[in-house]
Amino acid sequence: MSSVSDFTTRLSQRRDYVNGLISSTLSKHSDINDDLKQAMAYTLESPGKRIRGAMVLWCSELINGQSNCYADTAAVAIEMVHTYSLIHDDLPAMDNDDLRRGRATCHIAFDEAMAILAGDGLLTMAFEILAGEIDEPKVSAKLILELSQAAGPAGMIAGQAADLRSENVAGDIKMLEYIHLNKTAKMFKAAAVMGAISANANPEQIEALAEYGTKMGLGFQIADDILDVCSSSEHLGKTVGKDEKAGKLTYPVLIGLEQSKVIAEKTANQAIGALANFDERADVLRELAITMLNRTR
Amino acid sequence: MSSVSDFTTRLSQRRDYVNGLISSTLSKHSDINDDLKQAMAYTLESPGKRIRGAMVLWCSELINGQSNCYADTAAVAIEMVHTYSLIHDDLPAMDNDDLRRGRATCHIAFDEAMAILAGDGLLTMAFEILAGEIDEPKVSAKLILELSQAAGPAGMIAGQAADLRSENVAGDIKMLEYIHLNKTAKMFKAAAVMGAISANANPEQIEALAEYGTKMGLGFQIADDILDVCSSSEHLGKTVGKDEKAGKLTYPVLIGLEQSKVIAEKTANQAIGALANFDERADVLRELAITMLNRTR
Repeated sequence: MSSVSDFTTRLSQRRDYVNGLISSTLSKHSDINDDLKQAMAYTLESPGKRIRGAMVLWCSELINGQSNCYADTAAVAIEMVHTYSLIHDDLPAMDNDDLRRGRATCHIAFDEAMAILAGDGLLTMAFEILAGEIDEPKVSAKLILELSQAAGPAGMIAGQAADLRSENVAGDIKMLEYIHLNKTAKMFKAAAVMGAISANANPEQIEALAEYGTKMGLGFQIADDILDVCSSSEHLGKTVGKDEKAGKLTYPVLIGLEQSKVIAEKTANQAIGALANFDERADVLRELAITMLNRTR
Repeated sequence: MSSVSDFTTRLSQRRDYVNGLISSTLSKHSDINDDLKQAMAYTLESPGKRIRGAMVLWCSELINGQSNCYADTAAVAIEMVHTYSLIHDDLPAMDNDDLRRGRATCHIAFDEAMAILAGDGLLTMAFEILAGEIDEPKVSAKLILELSQAAGPAGMIAGQAADLRSENVAGDIKMLEYIHLNKTAKMFKAAAVMGAISANANPEQIEALAEYGTKMGLGFQIADDILDVCSSSEHLGKTVGKDEKAGKLTYPVLIGLEQSKVIAEKTANQAIGALANFDERADVLRELAITMLNRTR
């Protein structure tokens, strides 16, 4: 594998690339009213990590050796859906947060109504670009099905509902796993699978990348829980310590910090294990798992 | 044309049919958590008029003479998107309404967070069923593109944003037309066009039904504005007089009640005019236009 700094460079190049795709997608849609577009762009173009977008692109390249425009569209779509979920999650009636990606949250920078609409707009537009920009309807329909299932009421939304419900109640590991799987891991899985679909992967490849994505998502969320305890707002770009304050169910709360780190490591290893049948071209995905794990250290 | 009571029976049969489709779609999704599903079903299954759903079915039957399962799915999808828009529109940060379809609004019956998530869930699920239940990807992708454009940030959401922005400002007919076109007419147009697409209509047929749907939507919204002034809450199943109270831009406010009725009649005639090239099988759509107009009388 390449050195850590090589990987950091590759990740940052991918982030820039995804940012470029996002900007050009928004600017192509000149038919959106300025104030609504501004609210949508505000959070969408704020400095996100773009891990989901990068995963789409890397999984696609892993299968057919080069980037393709279907994966580009899928990367933008999943970042749009992820961003909409952040905007709605930050609303006063939800997590009531005022800091996100180092900036005031959307409803603080604009107002609540505009934040609700901006989120709705990003969610709808994700499906619009998947249906409109991909000229192979079979690929388009598969990508939309994958994304809508991951983001929908039996996926991310179920996780958000359970997350809210779990506040200040005595939860257990089973409930926490349900929340992490639905709220976070299904979207990571969708990112990996959408990359595979955009490159016409075979069922075995799709299955392996689905497993990789799921474990990456679980590991990422455990790392997030750990960082919420250990990091600073300045470093993280969002409010820290808010999980405990809100009485949220997290790994550190349930099993302590050290044990949480053990589980994060185990999960990262499972993600890497899912890539066993891929050659060194999957190294970038393996390094992504290690980098994710390193966030907790 | 058949008698008024014949048409009323046909419309009510279609409403029952759409209600049955909606219930069976929800019950097929056993993987949604009970509380989230309950909030989604609460407004979705409440007694809506199902005009958009009926339009999908009737436009589909007009083209190929019989109903088909693609149109069934499209009818459920558009009712899901319409219902999500009502749930979010009623939120405290938006129109802050407590009565809808004769019941407490979703955020009153549950809470704000659940109403936001239920709306998000219905919107996402609409695309999920269009991608998952229609086995011709070409038809599926076209339906999704039509619906997402109509509902998205250059469609319904733009209309909602403009509607909120127009409160208590001196607006003009041009702004009002923009709001009605985007907030209401584009979804009616989508209903007609989705019906046509599900029946493999040719471009001329699609164009005619798009025009019919657009004029129906404009007429419907003018009728709605008029009813908000003239009707009672009991009769309408939602709060009346709220437009004026909220300082909303409406036809009655801008040009008075009588002139509004003239425009409603003109618009209904334009809708009927768009059907000129269809034979008596389009009578049900013509009668729908007349019925809509009669609401204002």
